[in-house]
Amino acid sequence: MSSEFISKVDKEARRKAANILRDKFLNLVEQLKKGEPLVMEIPMRTLSNAIYDEKRKLLLLGEKKLRRNFLDLNEAKRFMQTVLMASIIYDALVSDEYPTIRDLYYRGKHSLLLKSIEGNKIVSEENTWDEQKESDSVIVDIEVFTSLLREEMLILSKEKGKVVGNLRIRSGNDVIDLSKTGHGAYAIEPTPDLIDFIDVDAEFVLVVEKDAVFQQLHRAGFWKQYKSILITSAGQPDRATRRFVRRLNEELKLPVYILTDADPYGWYIFSVFRIGSISLSYESERLATPDAKFLGVSMGDIFGNSRKKPYLSEAERKNYIIKAKDADIKRAEEIKNYEWFKTKAWQEEINTFLQRKAKLEIEAMASKGLKFLAFQYIPEKITNKDYIA
Amino acid sequence: MSSEFISKVDKEARRKAANILRDKFLNLVEQLKKGEPLVMEIPMRTLSNAIYDEKRKLLLLGEKKLRRNFLDLNEAKRFMQTVLMASIIYDALVSDEYPTIRDLYYRGKHSLLLKSIEGNKIVSEENTWDEQKESDSVIVDIEVFTSLLREEMLILSKEKGKVVGNLRIRSGNDVIDLSKTGHGAYAIEPTPDLIDFIDVDAEFVLVVEKDAVFQQLHRAGFWKQYKSILITSAGQPDRATRRFVRRLNEELKLPVYILTDADPYGWYIFSVFRIGSISLSYESERLATPDAKFLGVSMGDIFGNSRKKPYLSEAERKNYIIKAKDADIKRAEEIKNYEWFKTKAWQEEINTFLQRKAKLEIEAMASKGLKFLAFQYIPEKITNKDYIA
Repeated sequence: MSSEFISKVDKEARRKAANILRDKFLNLVEQLKKGEPLVMEIPMRTLSNAIYDEKRKLLLLGEKKLRRNFLDLNEAKRFMQTVLMASIIYDALVSDEYPTIRDLYYRGKHSLLLKSIEGNKIVSEENTWDEQKESDSVIVDIEVFTSLLREEMLILSKEKGKVVGNLRIRSGNDVIDLSKTGHGAYAIEPTPDLIDFIDVDAEFVLVVEKDAVFQQLHRAGFWKQYKSILITSAGQPDRATRRFVRRLNEELKLPVYILTDADPYGWYIFSVFRIGSISLSYESERLATPDAKFLGVSMGDIFGNSRKKPYLSEAERKNYIIKAKDADIKRAEEIKNYEWFKTKAWQEEINTFLQRKAKLEIEAMASKGLKFLAFQYIPEKITNKDYIA
Repeated sequence: MSSEFISKVDKEARRKAANILRDKFLNLVEQLKKGEPLVMEIPMRTLSNAIYDEKRKLLLLGEKKLRRNFLDLNEAKRFMQTVLMASIIYDALVSDEYPTIRDLYYRGKHSLLLKSIEGNKIVSEENTWDEQKESDSVIVDIEVFTSLLREEMLILSKEKGKVVGNLRIRSGNDVIDLSKTGHGAYAIEPTPDLIDFIDVDAEFVLVVEKDAVFQQLHRAGFWKQYKSILITSAGQPDRATRRFVRRLNEELKLPVYILTDADPYGWYIFSVFRIGSISLSYESERLATPDAKFLGVSMGDIFGNSRKKPYLSEAERKNYIIKAKDADIKRAEEIKNYEWFKTKAWQEEINTFLQRKAKLEIEAMASKGLKFLAFQYIPEKITNKDYIA
């Protein structure tokens, strides 16, 4: 690799990750030397070990651990997969490679042949793995085993998040002024922990689910008018966008408001930002933003409630509301039972939805005029603290 | 709108588009004044009027026109929709709005009521439109009627394309150095015609289908090593990415190489960049890059051919190749019949695929080492002109 083009930040990150990975797996060599059976103790990633921490408002991995024993026939293959993957990742780290999880799947995919003692006959043949979900699962095992996120091991991924606003960052060898991106935006890197925040002149962070609405708000100068940082997750947020938002909140102490469609899918996007995803609770501690607020669009914005008038007229409701589908209703009923949606405000929100069977897209608000969306609806709701926490 | 935050470029673009739109529709007023029947003549967008221009290597709209007559019962609704949409777009232009096509759907969605002469009874009720596909179709009519692309009317959209490389551009009020984006990238604006190219120090453009592979090549310093501009379409390219690539080719005279998976979906992505999409041939003249080359991954890279050795060993083929599904075979047979795939090289490519029934992802090449992908495979193929034009 032409290593002169690789940033110093990356080189340092590699060195750190390689050391941790090596130390953790050298334990196995120690076990061997002592004649002990080879065993890895890995935190369990089952639903029963995903615990919602009321106080920290995070979905965390519990204390339960599984023992992966090389001499157990049921676990030998998974043991082999784990060590194989760790060695591939280690090789990638020390060779200045930037694999993706798809790469890692390919890199490790081959057949192990058991030959007869004479060496001329294949007695048995076993694939390391067949499907990517097997190798992905092993990567997660290595993450929880080493407490290194994949990004820290320089494993890259597709990245959809974009940002603009009054913030200067250092990424790689460059300083980037996120207020000087013209009509375009800055596409967040897949390893947001390697970003340095240099200076910021913003009062809050607004995260918009939809890329097209982000484009509109950006173009209209929203973040200039209300000193802020504007982000889009372009749908379901990826890891890097979540980590970036968390860092803005935690390190720069900026409040985070999330704007999605008014439907269970939008609530779930909010939930992933705020709490973490159920299947990946081990990463929540680093990726979730427990302080994030759901700015809207809320059922109260559409129908009004005891505390406020609706933003929509009767005629607008008639034209804009989309009837909820059965799948939406089912999803809402599931979400209603999530631990972290069991607050008064959320139960009221979800109940109103179930009663009215009505969804609304952010674009319906934009169609009332971008002026309305950018310079009335959003700032008014922030000022009035009209959000769901 | 806080118009001080809106770029001058946008203001000028608005003024131009509003004038063209107004002039075109003022013709209808002229017809009325003269007592003529109201008729719009709009280029037909049927498959039979999408013509492949051999010489320019573009899919273009033919000469056929349809007459939309207000007094024809079958056309009155569509006539009304067209005029309604034009007036909404015009209003948006002069009010500094940046609608999306979803917005425009909502903005125009309402019921027209026909009341009795006494005015106290609703005799008939008709919705302007019910589904977005109706309003979208009318937007396209307006595009071909006025020869204004939606982007020129400041209609924004979701945008996935990213770019890095030795290029400085002016976008909005800012000058952006695309070689100074750190580990992140520049997210292309939805209106790439408003970008000014300031200076460039690059020898070619490499477009990568997959965002994750883009991240890898970027991080490894590919575009620094081989003075180039690196772009990802993140899957099927959107309009802005296509227009941006076309402008790099046409205005900066840079050769464009496209790197996709070796499968019919990848070929189609190439085809959209090079020729245009069948359903939207009216836009090809502006968005397509007839000079774009398919760099790979090709069947020859996998299996070799009479002219070269394969890049993969027998063992690698065994581990990396994905068996083509029935849908892939069907797609390949369709593509084989497209006019612009009827060259010797493409027919050989597609026939090999149909014979071998084998697909390959770019990631399989990356798994042979990023060094191999970035610093051997890609540059070697460019140097040897080992691509399909």
